[in-house]
Amino acid sequence: MKNRQIQLASRPEGEPKPADFRLVESEAPAPKDGEVLLRTLWLSLDPYMRGRMSAAKSYVKPVEIGETMVGGTVSEVVESRHKDFKKGDIVASMVGWQDYALSDGSMLRKLDPKAAPISSALGVLGMPGMTAYFGLSEIGKPKAGETVVVSAASGAVGSIVGQIAKLKGCRTVGVAGGPEKCRYVVNELGFDACVDHRAADLPAKLAEACPKGVDVYFENVGGATWSAVLPLFNNYARVPVCGLIAHYNDTALPSGPDRTPLLMRAVLSKRLTLRGFIVFDFFGKAEEFYRDMGGWVRDGKIKYREDIIEGLEKAPAGLIGMLKGKNFGKLLVKVA
Amino acid sequence: MKNRQIQLASRPEGEPKPADFRLVESEAPAPKDGEVLLRTLWLSLDPYMRGRMSAAKSYVKPVEIGETMVGGTVSEVVESRHKDFKKGDIVASMVGWQDYALSDGSMLRKLDPKAAPISSALGVLGMPGMTAYFGLSEIGKPKAGETVVVSAASGAVGSIVGQIAKLKGCRTVGVAGGPEKCRYVVNELGFDACVDHRAADLPAKLAEACPKGVDVYFENVGGATWSAVLPLFNNYARVPVCGLIAHYNDTALPSGPDRTPLLMRAVLSKRLTLRGFIVFDFFGKAEEFYRDMGGWVRDGKIKYREDIIEGLEKAPAGLIGMLKGKNFGKLLVKVA
Repeated sequence: MKNRQIQLASRPEGEPKPADFRLVESEAPAPKDGEVLLRTLWLSLDPYMRGRMSAAKSYVKPVEIGETMVGGTVSEVVESRHKDFKKGDIVASMVGWQDYALSDGSMLRKLDPKAAPISSALGVLGMPGMTAYFGLSEIGKPKAGETVVVSAASGAVGSIVGQIAKLKGCRTVGVAGGPEKCRYVVNELGFDACVDHRAADLPAKLAEACPKGVDVYFENVGGATWSAVLPLFNNYARVPVCGLIAHYNDTALPSGPDRTPLLMRAVLSKRLTLRGFIVFDFFGKAEEFYRDMGGWVRDGKIKYREDIIEGLEKAPAGLIGMLKGKNFGKLLVKVA
Repeated sequence: MKNRQIQLASRPEGEPKPADFRLVESEAPAPKDGEVLLRTLWLSLDPYMRGRMSAAKSYVKPVEIGETMVGGTVSEVVESRHKDFKKGDIVASMVGWQDYALSDGSMLRKLDPKAAPISSALGVLGMPGMTAYFGLSEIGKPKAGETVVVSAASGAVGSIVGQIAKLKGCRTVGVAGGPEKCRYVVNELGFDACVDHRAADLPAKLAEACPKGVDVYFENVGGATWSAVLPLFNNYARVPVCGLIAHYNDTALPSGPDRTPLLMRAVLSKRLTLRGFIVFDFFGKAEEFYRDMGGWVRDGKIKYREDIIEGLEKAPAGLIGMLKGKNFGKLLVKVA
């Protein structure tokens, strides 16, 4: 059996290019005792992957040149020499950008295809959903009647954050790229308002959408959106810092005056709380997430949208596009 | 009886000038039923006063042109028509930059001159001490063995923060202006190290003083010190944002590249918590402070240093100097 792997060919300067990836073919490996052979059905594409392509120190080690790109996957067990798994089992896995991979079972979570579409284990019922859930509940701590602003509001994380905020009784305002996404956020997801971050008058539009100021800002992007939110914070506002996608391709700091003192002054005088987090930080509470989010999805209280690319070989273009906001919904690669 | 008041004459552009203040003389007022007449003994000078001189919106309203400058005071009751106070009582008060003032008793706290020097009610046992105590315990949450960095380390707040951190078993590193203050911080206050923020190689010196990184940074200043601390944070570090004295006289944002994304990336990837606070936020827990800090001061575990100016008329020069780091210890005006 032929295995395709997409490896990191070179570290991108700024925006990743197709040539930063390399498709390599080899024989699929054979499982030893205690191992399973997995066939990738779905590969998740997520903004954090850009960080892994860089050598810069971060919360996990980077992908090395010549290594297979990392990523969350949903796989089928096609051969098992492991007592806990049998052929045909569907598992959430982290085997990255390839058709086949071995596992000793340690990082696998069995999925019940009858309970929910298996691809949702990479989105609303997986890492992005968990990121939204814990970032909002543990750091944002929204109270009914407060205003919650969410950037990348049509994306895998932002779309869930806003819907949970609505369930909690908050005024919920999204920021998204373009009128189509904004309409979706309001009409389909039920946000109270959504502002286009490409609009020239973003600060004024956002202020208009938040007549009582901002109590929680769920930060996924940075850049112009962050600058527009900063003047709107109410005292004691909370800012879960989840992502900064506007900066992932930066090669230098933006020019212009250093706005750091502006940020720090707002933190001081409005007693803001800014807290960065990564979903790993909350894995100890995962059961709470599966219980709540599983129930909400089952009851139709939380909706989600998938943006599906067919074919592993198209994953690089998918990631490159995502970093420019081209996807619309949770970006997935249907591998098999 | 003649009363002198120092009023705000004009809003400073940048550094305050003597002409921004005006000394006005009038007759001391007479108390009505339910009031006391207070004579100011001590006036506290504190960095927040610069903020009150500006019209910019902040957590409290600014001093208006022609109003008496605000400030914490220790006063003697010289005439009482209030059932809870008698002539000769010493009280902590907030009557500002003047010799005499009326009070209905609502903002007064009686002091016991035998328990501690009365001026300490404006420092270690007053607002600056409380700021240090709650900012560190409620936001910094230092654990034994962690590294705590404190800016303005010889000042009224910083000196207390570092000594509490030492009591909690932390490696404690100060940042202060000049070798004399640094020596005091290490030799008298018992910090493990102190770095001069005027040194050209501040970032390298601070890194050297923090071989295991920084777990808590108590922010009093901003500017170059903040930039030097930023690369040193450990994962999950906490930053109580208490003051930004380096910026209080700014008239524009600093030029050069915008370092905001650098700050936000550190918040994200190291999961930092930045939280601004004001001592008011913790007034509900004041008893805890008086109990702990009272005990520590009585037992000689916490030391403090006062920098005393004689004469109300010298208060403007005192505040102007403090904003440039000229004071050494808690700055007080001995008014009578």
